[in-house]
Formats: sequence, structure tokens, C-alpha cells
Amino acid sequence: MSVLIVGSTALDSIKTPQAENPRLLGGSASHAAVAASFFAPVKLIGVVGGDFPARYVQLYKKHRIDLSGLQMEKGNTFHWSGEYEVNMNNRRTLLTELGVFEKFTPHLPEPHKQSAFVLLANIAPALQHHVLDQMTRPKFVVADTMDLWLNIALGDLLRLLPRIDGFVLNDSEAHQLTKQDNVFAAMKAIHRLGPKYVIIKKGSHGSILSSPKGFFICPAYPLRKVVDPTGAGDSFVGGLMGYLSTARGAIDANIRRAMIHGSVVASFCCEGFGLNRTTRVKRAEIASRVRELEQLTKF
Amino acid sequence: MSVLIVGSTALDSIKTPQAENPRLLGGSASHAAVAASFFAPVKLIGVVGGDFPARYVQLYKKHRIDLSGLQMEKGNTFHWSGEYEVNMNNRRTLLTELGVFEKFTPHLPEPHKQSAFVLLANIAPALQHHVLDQMTRPKFVVADTMDLWLNIALGDLLRLLPRIDGFVLNDSEAHQLTKQDNVFAAMKAIHRLGPKYVIIKKGSHGSILSSPKGFFICPAYPLRKVVDPTGAGDSFVGGLMGYLSTARGAIDANIRRAMIHGSVVASFCCEGFGLNRTTRVKRAEIASRVRELEQLTKF
Repeated sequence: MSVLIVGSTALDSIKTPQAENPRLLGGSASHAAVAASFFAPVKLIGVVGGDFPARYVQLYKKHRIDLSGLQMEKGNTFHWSGEYEVNMNNRRTLLTELGVFEKFTPHLPEPHKQSAFVLLANIAPALQHHVLDQMTRPKFVVADTMDLWLNIALGDLLRLLPRIDGFVLNDSEAHQLTKQDNVFAAMKAIHRLGPKYVIIKKGSHGSILSSPKGFFICPAYPLRKVVDPTGAGDSFVGGLMGYLSTARGAIDANIRRAMIHGSVVASFCCEGFGLNRTTRVKRAEIASRVRELEQLTKF
Repeated sequence: MSVLIVGSTALDSIKTPQAENPRLLGGSASHAAVAASFFAPVKLIGVVGGDFPARYVQLYKKHRIDLSGLQMEKGNTFHWSGEYEVNMNNRRTLLTELGVFEKFTPHLPEPHKQSAFVLLANIAPALQHHVLDQMTRPKFVVADTMDLWLNIALGDLLRLLPRIDGFVLNDSEAHQLTKQDNVFAAMKAIHRLGPKYVIIKKGSHGSILSSPKGFFICPAYPLRKVVDPTGAGDSFVGGLMGYLSTARGAIDANIRRAMIHGSVVASFCCEGFGLNRTTRVKRAEIASRVRELEQLTKF
């Protein structure tokens, strides 16, 4: 089955202590869509402006991403600029130009409304609602978020949680949302807000799933060098949903391996600026890192 | 085989937002010895003063710990006092009274010198050297440390590293020692300083082994509530060495399961003040949590 992905489609200008990279293809939906494309056909919902480079449309197409839901509007593409510190753990936003994103209203083409697997990648919860409102009867809906929405759109987010099956957020966001320091206590509190599946991302420390079948501790792939972590979380959840949408059997039977595959795609994402490394990944490389993770966690 | 453990034997006064607990049995050697005792006979090397409560001697004995190397000196037992913040991640030292520890020189009883497995739990590297100097031909030596020794005894520590097989430290200490932000790069750098086995502790994020057989990502047992994390790292390495000293076969074949067992004992340590919970642990409870960790990491 295919996976429908809505989120931001952006141009990212990323500064690290080593290099400056202007106007890379970025945004939560771009990272998630490319990651998912290794496992499943992807339908992308987003918006870009007149300045959106043709080579990025080609990149989407190279990954066989269905662009019939990608709106092209007059104006500039959403542009984000950020700078990482030496240790790659802290980043600060230098500039946010919303451009065409400011008035973005996702419109789903008719066939998209039947999609079984829906990833509401990180965008305003109101837009995530708007996509869900148009869906007929999705089988499995996962939403991602960020601290910004906890700060300025908490009501919308809290109303979204009962409408989704899985919720993905990082540990500091989980703390902010639940006021629980302990990650397992936080996950329990988030279940009470709606989602049956809660996944907490911990960057290089991996991620944790809390599900009806209990916890799963998912490792991060050991990277000796991180070039640019932008989009790693989006790649993780994109890979996860791509894998899940084509795996046979119940969600519970597949979600652990789906997380492992997401974790592996996220590791490739960190090895290059923007999507530079991810877009060159071969299926055999993914399979190889999955086997490595099996070895790394066996006891 | 038995395991020889040298380290601090102390009275810990621990304050948390919930409670105040004066003069608990503590110290790196106490935690490590009790943890190791679940798997192997333990020989303890340490020093206590005249104020050391008889009930703590009984506690050691309950765990069948060989106390022939525990020196009883005139003066007061090493007393440490610390306070944890609400989130249990940050602690500050309120008071350190070295007492008889100030002039401690470990003397090994003759039979102890033949021990095959040696754990140099956290004490001054000079004392760790002094113990090694007295050993005949240990099979496997592991050392733990703390940031204090990196600050005030780095030379001694650097001279110790080529003399040991395994080195255990936490992620911030690894960063301090190697100036590497990336934990895998840090482990590589530590191998170059001597030890074949490097284990980096990451608290609730688990631990990582770098060995001749590659990496192992070891999970922490998921605790919903941490009462007192004091001694968790000592319990981890104590449990690890206790398990390893009685396991049949090569180190490489057993060290992963040894870490898992250490991780489980450390989880019990966190569930009570001082050794209150650890000392009540039953072997069946350890086995049960090991099985749970198997389930939690399977994919």
C-alpha cells in the first residue's frame, strides 16, 4: 500500500562549523517522503513557490513520489536557515521565511482520500486536522510535531491526539507536554491523551515505542561522524511509515522492524547535508545496516 | 571464580526532593560488591572507621562477601553527602569527609593476590595501581573512574589504562578524556590509550560496549520511577564482573550478557535509597528482568 505524507516542503540553508549550504531541499515532508520511498509508493502533500528549483522536482520524481498533491503557488518557497554548534546537538534558527507556506491549505486529490497509511509530518496541527478531515477511512495515522506547536497551538494538538493512532515526538517535547521527567511515565500520560502507539525519539540514544504489546527499545545506528542531523527525525518516521505500509500482517507484528528501518534511513540522513546522502542510498545499504543493528543488540 | 573488588566503602547521606536519608551504606565498592554477589563469590578491599555500623558488616556478610581485605581503622568512615534535583539527573555534593579513607592503602591478603577477575571500582587511580601491583596474574581487570580523577589525577589514570583490560566511564567523562563529542569516536580514542574493552555508561539511555568483536548497544531497564540513582553505575559494573567471573567460555562470548545482568542490577539499585532495594533482590527477579530486556529489544 502507498503512504500519504503531508508536511513542510522547504528550502533549508544550513550552517555548520565546517560548511555553509544554501537552499538545500528540506522540510519535514521532503525528508519523510524520500525516506518512505525506499519501501512504498509515496503521495506527497505540500506547497512550493515559483523559486522552487526544477532539480528538486526531479529528485522527488527519482524517488517515484506522487506529486499530484504538491501545490505550486505564486511567491517564494518556505525558507528556513539554521546554524549548528560544534557538537551538532544544539542548533539555532537564523531565519524563517514562510513564503507560500503562510497561506497553505492542503487539498487532497480525490484518489489520495482513500489512502490507508497517513503520515502527518511536522506542520501546524490545524493543517494536520485539515488533512484528516478529508480522509475517508485511513487504517493507520501517525503524527509528528515540534516544540513550536506545543507553545503556540497546544489546543489544536490536544484535539488531534484522539484522532491518530501513533504519535511521534522527542524526549524534551514529551516532557514539555506531560510535565513528566521520566520518559516511561511521559509515554503513559500521552496514551491517556489518545494515541495507542507513542514513540519518543532520543536522537543518538535511539527511540522508544510504547504500544499495546509493551515497550520496544530501538537503537540508533552508531555513526562516528554526523554531518548534518537536519531531517533525521522526519526520515525516521518516514522510513517507519513506508515500511509499515507495505509489511504484511498486523501493525503490532511489524512496528518494531519498521522503527529499525526508520532508524537506519535516519542514520544515512545524518551523513550528508540535507537529502544529499539519503537520496543516494541503495536498498542493499539499508538491509546491511539493519543486519548490523541486529548484531549490535543481540545478547 | 571469585571477583576481587576494591573501591570506596562509605556512609552516604542522600537528599532527594522526597526524602532525606542519613548515613546509608554506600561507596563504589559496597555497591559493586553487593551487585557482584548475586553471581559470584566476592572479595572486598576497602577501609572503614570505628563508626561503621555493625549492621552494615552484617549486610556484607548476608551477601557472603569476603571481608578479610576490609581494613578497620581508628577514625571515621568516609562520609559523603549529596542532594538530587527533582528530575534525578543532576546532583550536587553537599559534603565530603574523607575520614580513614584519606590514608587508605589497600593491602591484599595473600590469597586475594591470585584472583583472576579484578574490579578496580571508582577510587583514586593511584590506589587502583597499588592493587594491581600486588596481583600475581589477573585474567581480566576492569576499572571504573569519575570526573574528579580526570581533573586531579589524569597522569595516574593515563598510566593505568594500558594495565587494564576493560575501562568503564560515563559519556561526559569520555568526552572530557578524549575531547570527542561523538561517543563512538571517543571509544576509538580510548582504545588507543590501552583498554581492549571500553564501556560507556549513559544512565537511563543504557550503555555501549566497544570490543574486539565490535559494538554492543545495551539497554537500560525501563523504570517508571527512580528513587535514588546513587551507586547505579557501580552496581552495573559490579553485576557485570560478577556475571563474567562465573560464566564459562571466552570474555567475548559472555560480556554482552554480563552487561545486561549489570544493567538489571543497576535498575534495582535505582529503586531504593542506597542499597535498600538491591540487598533485597532475589535471583528470580534478576532473571525475570533479563527476560524482559530480551523482549524489549527483539525485532
